[in-house]
Amino acid sequence: MSADRLIKKIMEKKSVLCVGLDPVVDKLPNVLKQEIEMQGKTLEAAAEAVYKFNTVVLDAVAPYTAVVKPQVAFYEALGVPGLEAYRKTIEYAKKLDLYVIADIKRGDIGTTSEAYAQAHLGYTNILGEKRRAFESDAVTINPYLGDDSNHAFSQWAAKEDGMTFLLVKTSNKTSSQLQNQKVGERFVFDVVGDMLKDSPYAIKGEYGYTPLGAVVGATHPEELSLLRSSLEGSFFLIPGYGAQGGSADDATNGFDERGLGAVVNSSRGVIYAFNEEANYGAQIAEAAQQSRDDLNAALERAGKTYWEA
Amino acid sequence: MSADRLIKKIMEKKSVLCVGLDPVVDKLPNVLKQEIEMQGKTLEAAAEAVYKFNTVVLDAVAPYTAVVKPQVAFYEALGVPGLEAYRKTIEYAKKLDLYVIADIKRGDIGTTSEAYAQAHLGYTNILGEKRRAFESDAVTINPYLGDDSNHAFSQWAAKEDGMTFLLVKTSNKTSSQLQNQKVGERFVFDVVGDMLKDSPYAIKGEYGYTPLGAVVGATHPEELSLLRSSLEGSFFLIPGYGAQGGSADDATNGFDERGLGAVVNSSRGVIYAFNEEANYGAQIAEAAQQSRDDLNAALERAGKTYWEA
Repeated sequence: MSADRLIKKIMEKKSVLCVGLDPVVDKLPNVLKQEIEMQGKTLEAAAEAVYKFNTVVLDAVAPYTAVVKPQVAFYEALGVPGLEAYRKTIEYAKKLDLYVIADIKRGDIGTTSEAYAQAHLGYTNILGEKRRAFESDAVTINPYLGDDSNHAFSQWAAKEDGMTFLLVKTSNKTSSQLQNQKVGERFVFDVVGDMLKDSPYAIKGEYGYTPLGAVVGATHPEELSLLRSSLEGSFFLIPGYGAQGGSADDATNGFDERGLGAVVNSSRGVIYAFNEEANYGAQIAEAAQQSRDDLNAALERAGKTYWEA
Repeated sequence: MSADRLIKKIMEKKSVLCVGLDPVVDKLPNVLKQEIEMQGKTLEAAAEAVYKFNTVVLDAVAPYTAVVKPQVAFYEALGVPGLEAYRKTIEYAKKLDLYVIADIKRGDIGTTSEAYAQAHLGYTNILGEKRRAFESDAVTINPYLGDDSNHAFSQWAAKEDGMTFLLVKTSNKTSSQLQNQKVGERFVFDVVGDMLKDSPYAIKGEYGYTPLGAVVGATHPEELSLLRSSLEGSFFLIPGYGAQGGSADDATNGFDERGLGAVVNSSRGVIYAFNEEANYGAQIAEAAQQSRDDLNAALERAGKTYWEA
């Protein structure tokens, strides 16, 4: 399998935006905070409010994005009820025909990564019955344990027409601490990039991309450009646009000459872009539309207009 | 805070064993598999059986171990019901006064790791109310994103008298692929070790250990020995003993001269050590006792007898 299913959705929607679903109780609209308050400020109440919020967000952004990325940490923080909200959020997104990248950044020894992959990419075999834990299409994964871990995920991605996005160069301040250490003439993140190229699952689809994507931050535009060349078969998930400081023009470095090969994530810049309580869904929709247009305009300036291809 | 709370529990129990709780449906006793079958092989039925199994395991091993380590991947594979079983398993272990290391291997950008840390080490603030998602005492964490990530966990460990165990050198076959790359004269895992030494949270307790532990595999005994010297303030969680091939003598390399400074994990070698259905709890207890004795005997051979200290 390959990145074709994702790329087709992007071309249909004419949007390279990915909307991050990172819900935090303090930032919810007041109307939802009041519901949490009335129900005793429990994990259950918070989780229910988060799910309601997400349905409004998903309805709002669906016309402007092909891809959403729930960050599981924010749901884990709400315990088991939070994970039920996570599960239902993915289910709702799938009903809206959105491609769902589970931002889980998992990685472990082989047998353990296999369990994670079953949970988030495939299915769990319960005495012969196939059961899906979470319905996501793709996952982000961590390279520190090497191919034992990567392959457990890649195998399920290949089998179920999903994708993996390996952390190569992240968008945070201390990403260089380990990732930019020099191994001979190269960086640690280049060694990680090799894992993507050398994998037996790196099989290209119609558009030249494998199911093995990479996370490369918009906050490092020069590295993004170099990695675009060296990892030509890997689709990029680009975080760091918007609230984290990367511009749309920076992000275009992650795209190929056809304007394909990446999605650009914005979380806080879209889902918290409201100030009028009564109308928060419409304001989130507007923010998603603006982000989509901002990215498309930047691609046009860079001469990378996928929608005319 | 420090590793004192953990070390005291180890000295009381006279055991450096850590029992890993890695439940897999196929390996459960037949009596539990039959219950899953009767209830339609659902995630709920599997999760309930796993929880029942864990309570038997915990009762069985509690006399012989101070520490247990649930591996969250195996619970995620059973979806939301699995995570409820995970939550209840931790709650049950805490009632038995066991120290719980949540083997989650999380790591993300700072704000996201903060959410994970709230979930597994601290509490989530819901409009002013403190709510605990999971009651674990300590977590394993991944270094790839650097100190932004590490510090979010360390801060909560310090605040709540918990601990973090940073992946330094793992026990799996491909651990060398990234971890043993040479950065100048040193290895990548040495660079990761520096994160533990340089952290503002690396404050030593009564026994000389900080709350910032390290995961170092028993399958690499020479590296274990070198790391014991270079990371003298870090308590070690040593996986790879038993089913993964590391011996008790190998594992002693991770201990200081007093026989302190580490716990040695066994998962499959203890929890699946049964063949008589009717009596599986007693057989698991026996396996735990043998593992404890095996480790103590190895420490004695190495002249590292903490129980006489």
